[in-house]
Amino acid sequence: MAKERDERAITPRGEDYSQWYQDIVLRAELADYSPVKGCMVIRPAGYALWENLQKALDGMFKATGHANAYFPLFIPMSFLSKEAEHVEGFAKECAVVTHHRLGAAPEGGVRPDPASALEEPLVVRPTSETIMYAMFSKWIKSYRDLPLLLNQWANIVRWEMRTRLFLRTTEFLWQEGHTAHTTHEESWKEVLDMLGVYARFAEEWMAVPVLKGVKTDSEKFAGALKTTCIEAMMQDGKALQSGTSHDLGQNFAKAFDVKFQDEKGEWRYCWQTSWGVSTRLIGALVMAHSDDQGLVIPPKLAATHAVIVPIYRDDAGKAKVLDTARSLKATLAGAGLGVVLDDRENLSPGFKYNEWELKGVPVRLEIGPRDVEAGSCVAVPRVPTRGLRDGEKRQKETLSLAGAPESLKSLLDDLQRALFDRALKFREEHSYKTDDYAAFRRDIEKGGFFWAHWCGGAACEEKVKEETKATIRCIPFDAEKEAGACMICGGASPQRAVFARAY
Amino acid sequence: MAKERDERAITPRGEDYSQWYQDIVLRAELADYSPVKGCMVIRPAGYALWENLQKALDGMFKATGHANAYFPLFIPMSFLSKEAEHVEGFAKECAVVTHHRLGAAPEGGVRPDPASALEEPLVVRPTSETIMYAMFSKWIKSYRDLPLLLNQWANIVRWEMRTRLFLRTTEFLWQEGHTAHTTHEESWKEVLDMLGVYARFAEEWMAVPVLKGVKTDSEKFAGALKTTCIEAMMQDGKALQSGTSHDLGQNFAKAFDVKFQDEKGEWRYCWQTSWGVSTRLIGALVMAHSDDQGLVIPPKLAATHAVIVPIYRDDAGKAKVLDTARSLKATLAGAGLGVVLDDRENLSPGFKYNEWELKGVPVRLEIGPRDVEAGSCVAVPRVPTRGLRDGEKRQKETLSLAGAPESLKSLLDDLQRALFDRALKFREEHSYKTDDYAAFRRDIEKGGFFWAHWCGGAACEEKVKEETKATIRCIPFDAEKEAGACMICGGASPQRAVFARAY
Repeated sequence: MAKERDERAITPRGEDYSQWYQDIVLRAELADYSPVKGCMVIRPAGYALWENLQKALDGMFKATGHANAYFPLFIPMSFLSKEAEHVEGFAKECAVVTHHRLGAAPEGGVRPDPASALEEPLVVRPTSETIMYAMFSKWIKSYRDLPLLLNQWANIVRWEMRTRLFLRTTEFLWQEGHTAHTTHEESWKEVLDMLGVYARFAEEWMAVPVLKGVKTDSEKFAGALKTTCIEAMMQDGKALQSGTSHDLGQNFAKAFDVKFQDEKGEWRYCWQTSWGVSTRLIGALVMAHSDDQGLVIPPKLAATHAVIVPIYRDDAGKAKVLDTARSLKATLAGAGLGVVLDDRENLSPGFKYNEWELKGVPVRLEIGPRDVEAGSCVAVPRVPTRGLRDGEKRQKETLSLAGAPESLKSLLDDLQRALFDRALKFREEHSYKTDDYAAFRRDIEKGGFFWAHWCGGAACEEKVKEETKATIRCIPFDAEKEAGACMICGGASPQRAVFARAY
Repeated sequence: MAKERDERAITPRGEDYSQWYQDIVLRAELADYSPVKGCMVIRPAGYALWENLQKALDGMFKATGHANAYFPLFIPMSFLSKEAEHVEGFAKECAVVTHHRLGAAPEGGVRPDPASALEEPLVVRPTSETIMYAMFSKWIKSYRDLPLLLNQWANIVRWEMRTRLFLRTTEFLWQEGHTAHTTHEESWKEVLDMLGVYARFAEEWMAVPVLKGVKTDSEKFAGALKTTCIEAMMQDGKALQSGTSHDLGQNFAKAFDVKFQDEKGEWRYCWQTSWGVSTRLIGALVMAHSDDQGLVIPPKLAATHAVIVPIYRDDAGKAKVLDTARSLKATLAGAGLGVVLDDRENLSPGFKYNEWELKGVPVRLEIGPRDVEAGSCVAVPRVPTRGLRDGEKRQKETLSLAGAPESLKSLLDDLQRALFDRALKFREEHSYKTDDYAAFRRDIEKGGFFWAHWCGGAACEEKVKEETKATIRCIPFDAEKEAGACMICGGASPQRAVFARAY
């Protein structure tokens, strides 16, 4: 029994945040460590979240005119080198394929067959700009072929020495949008539009408030003119970069000869963008909402919206309760809701409550013999919601069985909103304006977003990083354009940047 | 102009079947060759087909109790070797990762950094039995954990020297189901159930009739006890293996220690299955239905069901026709149909007809000024359908605009059925019973399925393969159990096997 308790126990956030995160991911069976260094296994509960994220995002991409395609996993080594900053950015984390066959090893077993060495090694894609734009250069001939708006759902490999489930793994899943345009004005609009899609998705679907802004040069994508990003705050006050949208300018177009003939018949280089989000979002979801009881899933991304737990003492009660529970399940499923009936025998209701809380199911519906008689059930949201009408926090409420689908939907909406509100409040409570570097160095220890003036110099940025491990997360778009003096050197600053420690 | 015609021209099937196939795939922009040897790019039109295939199959997998998960792309070399037949089957086509970093090459440029050589090389998954079952062995403890029913959508790499778009490429996309059970009876049922899902999908969605059967030992999956398959006939009379479902017995369970405690507390090895279909299905789709005008897409897998082509001579006609066309488009889209309105200027209706036929859109809707006045449009199915009531082939028909959604849906249903019927008729007309090996050797040249007796001996099978390039596609399940004498050696045979040349 002691062992079983240990296996189920979740380390409290306050005790060890990092262990808490790992406990949630493993115990809620979102993912597991694999025998391949740095690579994880995404288990069904985690993959179901990814499928729901994908479905929502994919719909938003298609609604904005993008089509999906699929490009090769392998990139010839020489392609990476064509854009100088790009290869520098990725060379140190590339998995390299050098052979195409295994053969018998002299000492027994197998080894890469030396006779199968590739003339040119292949890199497993760390991102697909180079391989895609080699094709763009073939496909794009005229301004009539533009804009070209593609997206790819794929696996990506970036060799990592220190990994963390979902947040940083050698292989991860993502989508990467890649577009080509006739003018910089149009491509910059695309950069911002897609950043807007990401922000909307994070806030409306994941219930995670985000800051939109521009990265500093030292943090931008290797090969981009400019990188924009959304940044979310986790419950330890650290930032998590949750999506990026890059203005590639004509850098890659020149490296890969992506050109079009304009209306006058002149050849010009395209203006390009790329943008992506990854399975990292699942880490953000876990860290933004979960608690010491386990996972918390925003209703809009949950595969299972409610679990029905029947409660009875004797066989007569059991028959009656199970009948009603089954019919409730059918009614809710018929209304498009994901419902599980937990009719397992020999487990106490309390045991079941804990298990479903651990798994993050948004609402628990309890039904006992008295509820059956009253034609109702008791709904318990995973996190207390605030009743919109009465201003009270709702811990539980009685739902009439007759109107259950509508009441449950309304409760799920409330929960979705409550999660966002809670996360926003948390961020506001942990955001500080600061003008004093000494105070910043002291306060950064407790986490949070620090809005401070910065002169724009790489030296000041680097000094902060070295001395505090904090980085500039972004120069926010929707912020007051208040001029001031750099917190570090006192130089002129046109607006505050956001400093934080980050994942 | 000569050049443009050439680029658009499709080589007739009768002239060069293989070139015809390639022309269709390239001209309909389903896929393109990539700069990476053996790897293709799946373009939006091809990927949309794959998405629709995926969606239908994924629904069938989930309806039969399977959940999706994701396992690492990389497999430690030693894992492959644990099942002796398995490594033998795949060693010769493995992409091997040996380094995890690029570094500066002495001669300039980059090379795999010698200091980053991996202690144990990693193989890019050619299939995932080994990496998955290493995890199964960790997760499965008791009979209560069984059956374990997982599926993975992923990319796969098998090094190919001679490749063909969709049909045989070094990298391809697929799904692989992997299950573990307590008894062989149960796992064999799973093998057949999933083969049944594949057959149903092929026939009902792809409109491709298939034979279900068992592979001979020489054709089975490396490491399986038995491989079952579905086999389809292409328009050149060749077979295309379109899906396989494997009885893995306890071979991998023993190699990877996948065990469970039964009700009595005894440890026993699991019984396992795996099953998969891939982007190869798109090749099957193309080769089963398309014609010299271009691609033919079965309506149930089409993203675009109908294209509206407006026809007018003057501006007054144009305004009227376009108004009606737009409103028709909105009505059809509102009914859940995928519709494109081709209102491009300066292109003749004939040009547009050809282009949409090339792209395989199931139905063309023509609207001219007279149609507007009559409140109707003219529907032309991509392939003549047979009217169910009147027994006539339908080349085109007049649809009332008022009832357009229902009429179009009904026409699409007819077309779906017509495609299946045509493919089935083709297969029947090219299937032969044969008992005479000399006649078989002569007739195999013209293609088709040859039902012949076979003694079960590997020598006879090999002789046929060497002398005719035909293989035993399967020993069909739903066939007459008619005993006879082996076509090759005269030995006893319990039933006929199906011989054909194959892709």
